[in-house]
Amino acid sequence: MTRDTRAPFTIRPATDDDWPALWPIVETVVREGETYVYPLDLTSEQARELWTERAPGATVVAEGADGTLLGTAKMGPNRPGHGDHVGTASFMVSPAARGLGVGRALGEHVVAWHREQGYRGIQFNAVVESNEVAVRLWRALGFEVVGTVPGAFRSPAHGYVGLHVMYLPLVD
Amino acid sequence: MTRDTRAPFTIRPATDDDWPALWPIVETVVREGETYVYPLDLTSEQARELWTERAPGATVVAEGADGTLLGTAKMGPNRPGHGDHVGTASFMVSPAARGLGVGRALGEHVVAWHREQGYRGIQFNAVVESNEVAVRLWRALGFEVVGTVPGAFRSPAHGYVGLHVMYLPLVD
Repeated sequence: MTRDTRAPFTIRPATDDDWPALWPIVETVVREGETYVYPLDLTSEQARELWTERAPGATVVAEGADGTLLGTAKMGPNRPGHGDHVGTASFMVSPAARGLGVGRALGEHVVAWHREQGYRGIQFNAVVESNEVAVRLWRALGFEVVGTVPGAFRSPAHGYVGLHVMYLPLVD
Repeated sequence: MTRDTRAPFTIRPATDDDWPALWPIVETVVREGETYVYPLDLTSEQARELWTERAPGATVVAEGADGTLLGTAKMGPNRPGHGDHVGTASFMVSPAARGLGVGRALGEHVVAWHREQGYRGIQFNAVVESNEVAVRLWRALGFEVVGTVPGAFRSPAHGYVGLHVMYLPLVD
């Protein structure tokens, strides 16, 4: 018998009121500079603009039973025009909430959302090669590495590492 | 003895005054919808904003001897933050000027520009697989296909085709 030790949480659409609690999560991940190619000096206002997806996209949060925000994801078309049938997404998990299954639950939510919306696939444009937790998780959800741009990311901890393009087809 | 039948042209930085002559080129390419994942209903103002690269990027035009604009390219960092050591570029050639070597000259200019600016490589994020002229040209300049996202582009003429990620390393 296994006991589920993961904290309970729910995934729901983000609202404007969430930003004060979301920004510390986003800020920590951006300032770490290990997983995203965002400007390192991103302000709260710029990050809010960047992280708030408008229709047809969506932004969600993972909220703990006590109302604490544990993570967030945004999703929507990867490209406009004749490329808008493939979606994309980005994820951030609060350092305090790592290992609880928040990333996986957000990943599963994102895949289900794309299926419901009728996307033909999901593309991640720039998964940092040294972010092994993320690469392993996306593989577990069925994503494959389509290609790797060598040395395209300067990791503070690992030096020049590749950026994976990953893809999950949603139609045969 | 071979005779150079290509029309003479020069490549120079774009200025604000170029837009009225550039927009018809950009509009034709965007409305064709075969080579770029831009919104199909892009307005002149949106296109100008999108095509005008600010420092550290640059936008250039290829100008014929009679002052006619034959093509254009924009270039700059592909990503911000810890990804800004890899560049990217986009190209458009006037339908009236195809086959004159404008695309190749713009490509060579872009590669030289990235070398001068100290970039470590150049990444093209979304080269339409069925755009054989472009794929052949980038290969001739040394780019390789790092990976192809299957079916990520809806070509009006060819249906679902892949989008290549292409890369040219500029350092060993």
